[in-house]
Amino acid sequence: MAYTIGLDFGTNSVRCLIVDVTNGDELGTSVHEYETGQAGIILDSADHNLARQNPADYLKGIEAAVKEAVQQAKKADKDFDTSQIIGIGIDTTGSTPIPVNKNGTPLSMLDESRPLYKGRDEFKDNPNACAWLWKDHTGHAEAAEITELAEKEHPEYLAKCGGIYSSEWFFSKVLHCLRTDPKVFEAAYSWVECCDYIPGVLTGEQKPDALKRSRCAAGHKAMFDQQRGGLPAKDFLAKLDPKLGELRDRLYEKTYTVETQAGKLTEQWAEKLGLPAGIPVAVGAFDAHLGAVGSGIAPGKLVKIIGTSSCDMLVSQSSRQLPDIPGICGIVDGSILPGFFGLEAGQSAVGDIFNWFVNYIQPGGEPAGSHEALTERAAKLKPGQSGLLALDWNNGNRTILVDQRLTGLLLGQTLHTRPEEIYRALIEATAFGALTIINRFAEYGVKVTEVINCGGIAEKNPLLMQIYADVTGREMKISRSAQSCALGAAIAAAVVAGQANGGYDNFAHAQAAMCGVKETTYKPIAENQKVYQQLYRLYSQLHDAFGTQDWSGKMANVMKDLLNIKDSVNP
Amino acid sequence: MAYTIGLDFGTNSVRCLIVDVTNGDELGTSVHEYETGQAGIILDSADHNLARQNPADYLKGIEAAVKEAVQQAKKADKDFDTSQIIGIGIDTTGSTPIPVNKNGTPLSMLDESRPLYKGRDEFKDNPNACAWLWKDHTGHAEAAEITELAEKEHPEYLAKCGGIYSSEWFFSKVLHCLRTDPKVFEAAYSWVECCDYIPGVLTGEQKPDALKRSRCAAGHKAMFDQQRGGLPAKDFLAKLDPKLGELRDRLYEKTYTVETQAGKLTEQWAEKLGLPAGIPVAVGAFDAHLGAVGSGIAPGKLVKIIGTSSCDMLVSQSSRQLPDIPGICGIVDGSILPGFFGLEAGQSAVGDIFNWFVNYIQPGGEPAGSHEALTERAAKLKPGQSGLLALDWNNGNRTILVDQRLTGLLLGQTLHTRPEEIYRALIEATAFGALTIINRFAEYGVKVTEVINCGGIAEKNPLLMQIYADVTGREMKISRSAQSCALGAAIAAAVVAGQANGGYDNFAHAQAAMCGVKETTYKPIAENQKVYQQLYRLYSQLHDAFGTQDWSGKMANVMKDLLNIKDSVNP
Repeated sequence: MAYTIGLDFGTNSVRCLIVDVTNGDELGTSVHEYETGQAGIILDSADHNLARQNPADYLKGIEAAVKEAVQQAKKADKDFDTSQIIGIGIDTTGSTPIPVNKNGTPLSMLDESRPLYKGRDEFKDNPNACAWLWKDHTGHAEAAEITELAEKEHPEYLAKCGGIYSSEWFFSKVLHCLRTDPKVFEAAYSWVECCDYIPGVLTGEQKPDALKRSRCAAGHKAMFDQQRGGLPAKDFLAKLDPKLGELRDRLYEKTYTVETQAGKLTEQWAEKLGLPAGIPVAVGAFDAHLGAVGSGIAPGKLVKIIGTSSCDMLVSQSSRQLPDIPGICGIVDGSILPGFFGLEAGQSAVGDIFNWFVNYIQPGGEPAGSHEALTERAAKLKPGQSGLLALDWNNGNRTILVDQRLTGLLLGQTLHTRPEEIYRALIEATAFGALTIINRFAEYGVKVTEVINCGGIAEKNPLLMQIYADVTGREMKISRSAQSCALGAAIAAAVVAGQANGGYDNFAHAQAAMCGVKETTYKPIAENQKVYQQLYRLYSQLHDAFGTQDWSGKMANVMKDLLNIKDSVNP
Repeated sequence: MAYTIGLDFGTNSVRCLIVDVTNGDELGTSVHEYETGQAGIILDSADHNLARQNPADYLKGIEAAVKEAVQQAKKADKDFDTSQIIGIGIDTTGSTPIPVNKNGTPLSMLDESRPLYKGRDEFKDNPNACAWLWKDHTGHAEAAEITELAEKEHPEYLAKCGGIYSSEWFFSKVLHCLRTDPKVFEAAYSWVECCDYIPGVLTGEQKPDALKRSRCAAGHKAMFDQQRGGLPAKDFLAKLDPKLGELRDRLYEKTYTVETQAGKLTEQWAEKLGLPAGIPVAVGAFDAHLGAVGSGIAPGKLVKIIGTSSCDMLVSQSSRQLPDIPGICGIVDGSILPGFFGLEAGQSAVGDIFNWFVNYIQPGGEPAGSHEALTERAAKLKPGQSGLLALDWNNGNRTILVDQRLTGLLLGQTLHTRPEEIYRALIEATAFGALTIINRFAEYGVKVTEVINCGGIAEKNPLLMQIYADVTGREMKISRSAQSCALGAAIAAAVVAGQANGGYDNFAHAQAAMCGVKETTYKPIAENQKVYQQLYRLYSQLHDAFGTQDWSGKMANVMKDLLNIKDSVNP
């Protein structure tokens, strides 16, 4: 018997999974909430863009979560022993960069016993010296500045990330720190992504100069491209600020995919966690990417991670020539699986749109306006019955339009339109958006032969899954694990452990054994599909009309066509 | 001292006003609720299209309402005496036709002591033998049939009513009765509008062959046009049904405007009401039309009666050549004021859209989602601040598109859009719709120099009035009387009484003395106007794009322009 550990560092907590390498059974599982701030996030009442985390919470979290998961595993199987654990894998949120000193210690964690820097006292409670959480938007002006400069001088930097550099990404945050808190910037020898920091700590390979950096994090958020020479050129960064140019020398030249060992678990951490010293720790990656691995991603298999937004992940053999696919962000070699281009698409809001309707509009008050009540009533409606059509752009459109300055649209309301009809129209809108992504992949020769969904909404809302099946004309499968990200990390651990140690030689073998889909799937219903084909034509018309500069045409058909469809399904 | 009585027969009740002819003071006022059915309306749980009224309720209502108003007047002024009452005017809902026998008695009111017809017993409780209330839609199939035949053979019949004959109108109802309850149709010697029936009763000129029919009712709802030979041709009606053709001979050849005496108050009714016998009773008209009179309508003065929907009324000298104005319904000589074309426009839903949002969507539950609470919060927003734009088409578009098969649209939602922002966007949408009507009149040379509003919403919602002022760039005035329809009827009464009897020679003089506007008015605020001019351009773009076949163009600007406006007002 052999087990691996998957550690999943989320926005509010760290989750630990102990997985049976032979069949993917989850023997032990635990969740540890971060202690600092609100639900683990350091906020600033004066600046709603700020979102930071205390890196010390991560370390406490490892210990608490692993110990608890080991306890659970022992309860589940009295023969379980920690000596059977053969490797550790890690996924985290991202881009979540941390300013560190030359030893790789986060500036917020320096204490007076290690007087490396002047002014260190002020760092302990300085959010700028902490981890800059993925959803921190303080660098929005810097993001615009980077986009502008790249458009002018290096448009190729933006080609793989949809043409706009985001405030959520590495250099926006680092540059904002340089501009607004130069003391922290000066004190930082380097910046490391959270998904690099954790493996570094566990393996003792924490020093920035030695740290094996994640291809996934670098390629997506730091404009890293090995073929182009790695990170953006020094003179480009220097034009933003000379000190940013200098920082490049203290970042990295190489990056690694998740089949690489970051190192081996140190004696110290082995003792702390009660695990065997020397077991391999995999190079880290972002949660969505290892979530795709844990859901069984492979060529042709689209993994949809549906939460507040959606991440739609595909892979394509690296040996194959892949065209630029307009609107698809993050085409990075090895970002998901080694040997494959990872293709990342997604919708800027899915669950967030339903949450908006329930929490901001609060239709029908409580309990009439809960997700459950609205879903129950919406499920009784037939496709097309309400005469409504919506665009899923309340938070902009990530794929395929890559335009944050798009907004929502609802059309077809009468004096009798009810909340559940709007709720269903919003679900349908996200389904139409999902189909648009699949079609874009197909247009460029990346075929989707299977769709695997994971995330809370996919598991909990059969209506949504059925609508997705009916709209896309494809069977909707659900990832077997409710914790696909942590499972993906455990799979990476099994691969870095290697076949000789009870693990696997490659991801395909590991995935075949360790992940799968649930028995319950959602198949398209022909009758519904027919109506949704008509509605999708109208959705596409609105999508292209409001979302693209190229479109030109008439609109007078839209309301009438919707009423005709409504009449045809309400005989 | 001289007084007149205005009787206003509404959907749920009859209102009586006793008005001082010299200054329009309302000395006595009363409301009597109809007794039959739900809130005065006979409904059919098996057919939501059915809405009827018991004509006996009208007669009971006259007695109760007049007596109560007289009591009120006596309380208000101990010198008041009913001998000072010099005339009676009447307005009613419409089209509200009633099947009557040769004596003018509604079939539902025949009793056994007057055995004129066989089978009369069954009429008493038969809704088809009652008054067919304006909002009865049982004749929708017949309306479509009439429209189709008229389009083919007599398009001129539809030219003045917007191209579509409505299920709410006279012939749709009569034809539906013929088709579905031939016994009632056969038993009916004729059909009379409610606004003709009441004056007939009070004057004893009740027999259909003698009854002076209202120009207002005939011209609007029965396709009557004196210049064309009156009602639609016999052979046209006969093609719908031979018996409908025969009915034409028992309808009318002439119609009368509201300055005409219908007759004099009978001894019997004088005694019943405690009023002087022989005082003149004016020919009746529809409520909106006399409401316009009571609000001071005159050339250039647009009267907006804002309720669940809006009626926008203008008059133009009959001596002046008036072009067909596309989208303006009911251009009828004398329908509002004698000597003037009455021009009737309107929005299919105004208050009904806000009611839909509050009652169907129920945003924020109670009390957060009440009209009052939403208005209070919406009032704190600046124009353009929400980034939202709506079309006011939840119930179709009456003017200027004349298209019931248009539907609502809301655009610009984000994940933070709040109910009060939507509520304000809906108010703004109705304001943009109102401006579109004013602009259409102006394009065809009918200038609007003054806007007078009446109706509950206009009186109770200063935010709405301010937005209307800012959007239209015109001062919004409010009719002084809260009961403009009944006041208009009282004005008609003063005119039919004549100057010699303490009344007036013409409407201009009567209106000058008896009606006016409130001191509080709403003036455009330049800063708001500027933003609304930008928003109106976008509204017009959506309006033309979704509402007309001719429009063709781009849409990509809409969401961006809204965000730019939003950014400019949220510095």
